[in-house]
Amino acid sequence: MEIMIESIGKLVNEFSRLPGVGKKTAQRYAYKIIDMTEAEAKEFADAILSVKKKVRYCSVCGSFTEDDVCGICRVRDSSVICVVKEPRDVSAIEKLHEFKGVYHVLHGTIDPMAGVGPNDIRIRELLARLGEKDVKEVIVATNPDVSGDATAMYLARLIKPLGVKVSRLAHGIPVGSEIEYTDDVTLTRAFVERNEL
Amino acid sequence: MEIMIESIGKLVNEFSRLPGVGKKTAQRYAYKIIDMTEAEAKEFADAILSVKKKVRYCSVCGSFTEDDVCGICRVRDSSVICVVKEPRDVSAIEKLHEFKGVYHVLHGTIDPMAGVGPNDIRIRELLARLGEKDVKEVIVATNPDVSGDATAMYLARLIKPLGVKVSRLAHGIPVGSEIEYTDDVTLTRAFVERNEL
Repeated sequence: MEIMIESIGKLVNEFSRLPGVGKKTAQRYAYKIIDMTEAEAKEFADAILSVKKKVRYCSVCGSFTEDDVCGICRVRDSSVICVVKEPRDVSAIEKLHEFKGVYHVLHGTIDPMAGVGPNDIRIRELLARLGEKDVKEVIVATNPDVSGDATAMYLARLIKPLGVKVSRLAHGIPVGSEIEYTDDVTLTRAFVERNEL
Repeated sequence: MEIMIESIGKLVNEFSRLPGVGKKTAQRYAYKIIDMTEAEAKEFADAILSVKKKVRYCSVCGSFTEDDVCGICRVRDSSVICVVKEPRDVSAIEKLHEFKGVYHVLHGTIDPMAGVGPNDIRIRELLARLGEKDVKEVIVATNPDVSGDATAMYLARLIKPLGVKVSRLAHGIPVGSEIEYTDDVTLTRAFVERNEL
């Protein structure tokens, strides 16, 4: 039935582009749109267009912003820079209200298998920032996978000679979980990075 | 972070309106939109607007269509009418390629607790159709819940005196499932509606 009605079929296809959304879920979403008032649907469509029109990358840190320089870069302590892979990682860390410094978004991590080298991500821009301001510490917050580890090692080798401290987020057993159910790799990292009491 | 960027926050809110979508999923959807090209985002927004502009209810059966009368009502055997609660039920049944008749969408079922009486759903329109054309059978395909059962009973009492056969979809153990795991209500229905071999 939904194939027979072109506009519904098209909307189902569009919703299917979203991550983790199959045909059935896309259909439920499409029905929800049909159930909306015209004004609600217009607001939805406008929100999509508005994000594409307004959101861009901060010219300093590379995170999302609607201005030239993002709100974090404008007001926060720029002596500590947290390096992340994606703008969404900034959002995850900001939620903690713990980190008071600024960010640097690499827009990727070094991954030779995928043809991503150090020049393909925003490492040059990071070095330029280190030259401009008095940076005390760079915290590398890339994911704990091969590519994230390689990037962290690469950055440490590059930045430490400049006299800037380089640290990395700790890996280990997630708080609240059990040793029995922790995967081998994580458990091994927890041993290697064990802390003296 | 996402709260600081107004347009992203707004889009996250819009995605949160979709059924079963929480804040986190809505955020992932919003990031996907940001990753799209301008043209892709525009197509997405247009698909939403287009559905609201084009899709309406078939003047005969009450299902979704872009025309005055839907494709099913125009060409199919109108002597058998399958009565369903929602337009999406039409879609579920059409997928089977089994039913060759036409539909009648009630847009609800009788539910006194929610203040929905027989006059609040499209029962009058169904009776009108029975008077106009030579209908042999009405298959009631409302959900097997209190409200769906009540509606089926009501329709049977109303339509049978007109000399039209009224049937209802069978209830029972889902094919492929096991008796042990079938819920009590379903198992009871399976006993009551047991068939002679």
